[in-house]
This record gives sequence, structure tokens and C-alpha cells, in this order.
Amino acid sequence: MTRIVALDTSDVRFPTSLTLDGSDAMNPDPDYSAAYVRLRTDAPDGLEGHGFVFTIGRGNDVQVAAIRALAPHLVGRDAEELLADLGGVWRELVHDSQLRWLGPEKGVMHMAVGAVVNALWDLKAKRAERPLWKLLAAMSPEELVDLVDFRYLTDALTREEALEILRAAEPGRAEREAALLARGYPAYTTTPGWLGYDDAKLARLCREAVADGFGQIKLKVGADLGEDIRRMAIAREVCGPDIRIAVDANQRWEVDEAIGWVKELERFDLAWIEEPTSPDDVLGHAAIARGVAPVPVATGEHAANRIMFKQFLQAGALQVLQLDATRVAGVNENLAILLLAAKFGVPVCPHAGGVGLCEVVQHLAMFDFVAVSGTTENRMIEFVDHLHEHFVTPVEVTGGRYRAPKAPGAGAQLLEESIVEYTHG
Amino acid sequence: MTRIVALDTSDVRFPTSLTLDGSDAMNPDPDYSAAYVRLRTDAPDGLEGHGFVFTIGRGNDVQVAAIRALAPHLVGRDAEELLADLGGVWRELVHDSQLRWLGPEKGVMHMAVGAVVNALWDLKAKRAERPLWKLLAAMSPEELVDLVDFRYLTDALTREEALEILRAAEPGRAEREAALLARGYPAYTTTPGWLGYDDAKLARLCREAVADGFGQIKLKVGADLGEDIRRMAIAREVCGPDIRIAVDANQRWEVDEAIGWVKELERFDLAWIEEPTSPDDVLGHAAIARGVAPVPVATGEHAANRIMFKQFLQAGALQVLQLDATRVAGVNENLAILLLAAKFGVPVCPHAGGVGLCEVVQHLAMFDFVAVSGTTENRMIEFVDHLHEHFVTPVEVTGGRYRAPKAPGAGAQLLEESIVEYTHG
Repeated sequence: MTRIVALDTSDVRFPTSLTLDGSDAMNPDPDYSAAYVRLRTDAPDGLEGHGFVFTIGRGNDVQVAAIRALAPHLVGRDAEELLADLGGVWRELVHDSQLRWLGPEKGVMHMAVGAVVNALWDLKAKRAERPLWKLLAAMSPEELVDLVDFRYLTDALTREEALEILRAAEPGRAEREAALLARGYPAYTTTPGWLGYDDAKLARLCREAVADGFGQIKLKVGADLGEDIRRMAIAREVCGPDIRIAVDANQRWEVDEAIGWVKELERFDLAWIEEPTSPDDVLGHAAIARGVAPVPVATGEHAANRIMFKQFLQAGALQVLQLDATRVAGVNENLAILLLAAKFGVPVCPHAGGVGLCEVVQHLAMFDFVAVSGTTENRMIEFVDHLHEHFVTPVEVTGGRYRAPKAPGAGAQLLEESIVEYTHG
Repeated sequence: MTRIVALDTSDVRFPTSLTLDGSDAMNPDPDYSAAYVRLRTDAPDGLEGHGFVFTIGRGNDVQVAAIRALAPHLVGRDAEELLADLGGVWRELVHDSQLRWLGPEKGVMHMAVGAVVNALWDLKAKRAERPLWKLLAAMSPEELVDLVDFRYLTDALTREEALEILRAAEPGRAEREAALLARGYPAYTTTPGWLGYDDAKLARLCREAVADGFGQIKLKVGADLGEDIRRMAIAREVCGPDIRIAVDANQRWEVDEAIGWVKELERFDLAWIEEPTSPDDVLGHAAIARGVAPVPVATGEHAANRIMFKQFLQAGALQVLQLDATRVAGVNENLAILLLAAKFGVPVCPHAGGVGLCEVVQHLAMFDFVAVSGTTENRMIEFVDHLHEHFVTPVEVTGGRYRAPKAPGAGAQLLEESIVEYTHG
């Protein structure tokens, strides 16, 4: 028997605020951080499961404390038994009746469950000697729906409906896997668009994005309308008419303000308006979507759980669903969200950037292509060229496409020396 | 000048799971706990500001860590300046751009802000030698709206509309304050209704509730329909037809299940159905409200913030609004919620029980009566007869009514010996 013998945590913070990488209308000076967890076993293979929650600095210690609070659920237990029933583990962690009070199913405690669940998936994938996307894509529809907790979803998606979606995608799995390995998965880049960059840097980075083969870029907006118009004009001129340009307000606006602001920007041909207002405001987003149509509304990186996504879909409050690798309770909940998106026919364009979000979320998008939605149409993964050098298996993005990772695991593992160098305090 | 010289925290846990007090369909064995904070100043008066987040056991340490993360915002600062602008302090704490990422505005980090904000209000009220409700009820409409952050609310409630509501309630303030001091504020009791109690205890506690003058009791339901029908029959028989009986499912159901279950119980004449499903599910509650009408839907103790309440009101998803003293970011956000409820004409019946929730939330309901809604019609505060003995100023509930507290402060202060005896670990 293999036992989990330790759940170790680290408070890792990168001083990104010094360069204004990552500056937007709500987050002027983030220090990209990871509340990091590793699970160790007594197996002679020495394999570990790594996971993290992405934060932007202060409070990363609180997030680490929340992850540590889950240790009694795992340490000392049979790893094989746990890894054979990750649906059961998810339920046990999310529905711990005392810990649940701290959310429920949202915020620090919920994200902590996500980190631990993702670390278990990393361990499972490494033991299977497969990248996570491929491990998931090889599971049967029945095995996959067993991973999902349909509690609070059945008015929009039942287990039977989820099974149908997965069964319908079974036939082409092998062809799509081959296509993915050959051509990769589409990406778009946010690298040019941070508010802290001056015009020359904006123009240069737009030019480089086009030259690098990206079909879409994204600009941060929302702090000053005149500035936004000026920056959009530069970006549109440099990129030309054929590159899609999305804009991201990072929750800056009221409902009416969002509609008015987007009307002023729509002349630049917007791919989508992202996070126009509070991520909790389903009805507000629905009103904005009606008000700015046909410009699509995109959101999701701060949506707390599958229940919020369900409502955004039910209300027509988003037209582009941006799941996040570390905001919800890990792979299992993101599988529920992918199934919801497939049910409603809404494209998923995952949020990435930060620390390691690209590395982790690509597995979900690629699995979705092979085994859930079966398409990359109108879908792409965000890419930001930051901090990849700290990962054991950094993403490979070339020609505007994510290349399918082949290394075993879920992609979350930081280099030992990076952990040591950037451990806080 | 008076400086804040310390923010001290304690992890206080009461072993309530031993007696099944507080057992419901989702929380079988809570250990009622307080993530406790006290603010100390260098003033010779020795006055301290006390506040807490109520939790149910495991994870209370995580909540304490989150409160401690706010210390750099307060320690060393001028107390008089802070207390003179609690609206500004609220914005500073809630919108700290790095800490905000951990919610935003929900869960552990948001509740931590609530504890600290409430501790500041406690200090302010003690320095003013007034109970909190009276301190608030003496503020002008302009001063009160300055406490509220209208961000993400303006599509439902503007600052001007809030001012109108408060101005409309100004004329009768003195008479209502006198009435409150003379007659108290209506209460209902949940003491009889916990799932862990046997039939004899249920019947005895129902009988005692009626004898004590309560006009409404509440029963926990949702684990087993047959059991619920049996227990409701006992309660209705003991109470007779004139006592209102509410039921509380503690988030146990799916949408359709909730409607079907309530249909089976409505023959017992339900005062309301509380927390039928996920507290995040605005659209689900709206569907349930339509499906079980005219039985009112009550919820709010787990609603994460004012933005969720806004949507519940916009969607007709609740007919009874149950604000909670420690779930949202303190007095300021609860003032926003009281104003939203007044705007939509929905009665507020605060959640209480737990540790100290009765002691704290009564101030908000009484302030609402004097200065916001101006009425107690269809309004009452929950009462559970647990753990009051640990407070410096325990609630006084007689004849089914909360008696208006007269001691200075916000009611949150635990006895020193209780903190020492029940500090965890």
C-alpha cells in the first residue's frame, strides 16, 4: 500500500509589481504568487503531487493556511484508494460540514480544496505516466461523470445529459488527439495590453504578437475612457483589421456605465468585453449582454463555483466562458463547468497568465477538445509570457498555438530553486 | 492622538457537537466557534473594540489567519481618524487590491473584513457611550449613506434613493426609539427545531416556546420527508393554529426537489421555507419562489455580499431577507442590505443563533426599525438559547421579544474567562 505521508505548503511570491506586468483597472500592483502544495507518499517512485492557488500577493499566507487545514483529510491515507475515487475525495473535501461554513463553496476555503484536488490529479497523472489532458481524455464517459458533483446543477444539467454529451464526443477522440498533437490548440495573448505600459511598448508588443502568429490580442480597459480610445486606436492600427482585439475591464464598471463605455469602444471591432462588472452579478451581466450585443460578454476567472456558471449560462449573461484553473475546486469542478458550457453551446476560452495558470489550464482545454465539446471553433486559451521559466514543464506556445504537453502530470510543478528563492518572509 | 496599538486574535471553539445543539440537514455536528478579534488603543480609557466571525469549528484557525492579515491596515494608525470615517475604512479594507483577489468580496477574506469593521464600530460605540443601534439611529441620512459603498448596486439602488429612504424615516425616529425601549423587538425561536432532538424534546421545547411568548418557531427539515412530516405534525399540534411555524432546509435540495418537498409540508401552514437550495443560486431560488407561492422563501445567512442580495431582490427570489451579522463585511455592508430591502419593500428577519449572532444582529434590526424601514411588521429576529452566558452583555429576550440593549458597544464582547477556557489548541 502507498500512503500519503505529507502535505507540504509554501508561500511563493514573485515581485511582479516592480515592472507593472499584470497591471489593470482593479489591480494596479499585483505580486503574482502561488499558495503552493505538494503531496508526498511513501512509494519508492518518489513521485509527488503538486498544486497551487494563484493569488496576487498579500493574503497568500491566508490561502496557505487554508490548504494546510485540509491535511487531516489526506495525510496517512491510502493514496491508491484516493486516486481511484477522485469524485469521492472531491465530495469529502468540499462538503466537510464544518469547513463548508467558510464559503460555502467559494473564496479561500474553496480554492484550497482546488489546490489539493489538483495536486492529487498531478500525482495520478504522473503515476500513469501521462499528461493530465491525455489521462482525462482516455477515461470513459461513466468514469468522467463520476467525477462530477451534480448537486445544485440538475435544473440545468443532469448526470444523464452529461453522459450523452460525453458519449456523443467519443467517436472522434483519436482523430482529435492526433490533430492536437500535430497542430496544437489556439492561443490569444494579453502580453501587450497591461495598463502600466506606455504607448511605444504597447505598439511594439502588438506588432510582436501579430508576428508571433496570434490571431487575437487583449487590452485592459476601464480606468479612463479617453485613454482606452487612444490605446485601442494604436492597437487596431498596428494589428490591422484581421486580428481580433478583446478588451478586459476587470470588474471596474456599474451596469449602465459598462454599456455606455463599450458603445464608445465598439467602433474598434471588439472580440469581447471581459469582466465588465462584479463577477457575482449574473443579472447585471445579463443586462450588459443585452445592452452591448452583438459584442459578446466574457467572464469566469472570478466566478466562485459551478453554481455561478450555471446561472450565467441560464441567464444568457456570458457568451464566452473563461474558466480558471485555481479559482474553483479543481479539475472535477472544471469538468462540471466544461459540461455546462457544452450543454449550453457556449465556447470556453480559459483565463490564464498569472503564475502557472497557462501551464495548468491548457490540460482542461485540450481535454475539452478531445472528449467534451469536440471543437476548437471560437475557442482559445489566454497566453501571457510571464514566469514560465519557473516551471518544470513550461508551456510551449509557438505560432500562436499551445503545443500539447507530453510530460506526465498536471503542469503545476515549480522548480525547486524557484520555490526556495521566492518563498515569502 | 489615540493610536490603535494592537489587533489581537483568538481561536475560540465551544464543543456544541457533543449535545447536537445546532444539528441540521447540512451541519450534523457543528462546534460553534468564533474567530475573535480585539483592537486595543493607547487611550487611557482602556476601551477595546471587539468583533468576530462565527464559524462552526474546523477552519476557525483559517478565519483567524485572515483577520490577522488585516492588522497592517490598522495597527499604528490614528483611531479617531479611522472612527470618524468608517465608510472610508470599509472601502480601504474591502478594496485592498491584493487581498480582494481572495474573494472577491466573499468567503474567508470578506468575513475577516467584517470582523474588523465590527470591532471598529464596537470601539466607536463604546467611546460614544451608546449601544450601537442607538449610535447608528442618531446619525443623519447623509452620514449613513457615506458609510455605504454603492459600487455594483446602482442599477438597483443609488445614493440618492438611499438618502430618500432615510429622510422619509427621519420624522418618527424619536417615537420609534421610545416604543423600542418600552416594548422591545419581536423574536422567533429555533430552539425546538434541531434535527438531533427526539420527539419528546421537540414537543417539550415547542410547548415552552409558546409559554415563553414566541409567536413563531422554526424547524429544521430536509433530511427525510417522512420524518419532517411527523415532526411538523407534532409541532403543529403542540403549538396550535395561531403560532407561525417556519421550516429551514439548510441548502439541502435541488430546485425541483425543493418545490415538491414544500408542497408536502405546506398543509402545516408554513411561515416560510428557508434556504431551500444553494445560497448562490439566485435563479434557482426565484424558480422555487414561483413554485411554492404563496409560501415565502427566506434566505440570506450565507449570501456572500450586497451584490448577491441585490440580485435576490431583483429576481423576486426571496420574500424574507435574513441578514447575518458576520457573513458580510460588517455593519457598513449590512446597512447597504437594509437599504436594498427597504427599497424593494421586503421584510428583514435576521439570522441569529450560533455564537453571539443574537447579541450583534439585534443592533441592526433595531436601527432598521428606528431609522430605515420604520416598522416591525412581519419582522422578527431569530433567537436560539445557546451560549449567551459567555458574553459581557448577553441578549435579554422576554415575552418573545428582544429587549433593547442599553450598554455601550456592539454586543460582541466575550467574557475574558470564556476566551481563556475555550481557546482552541
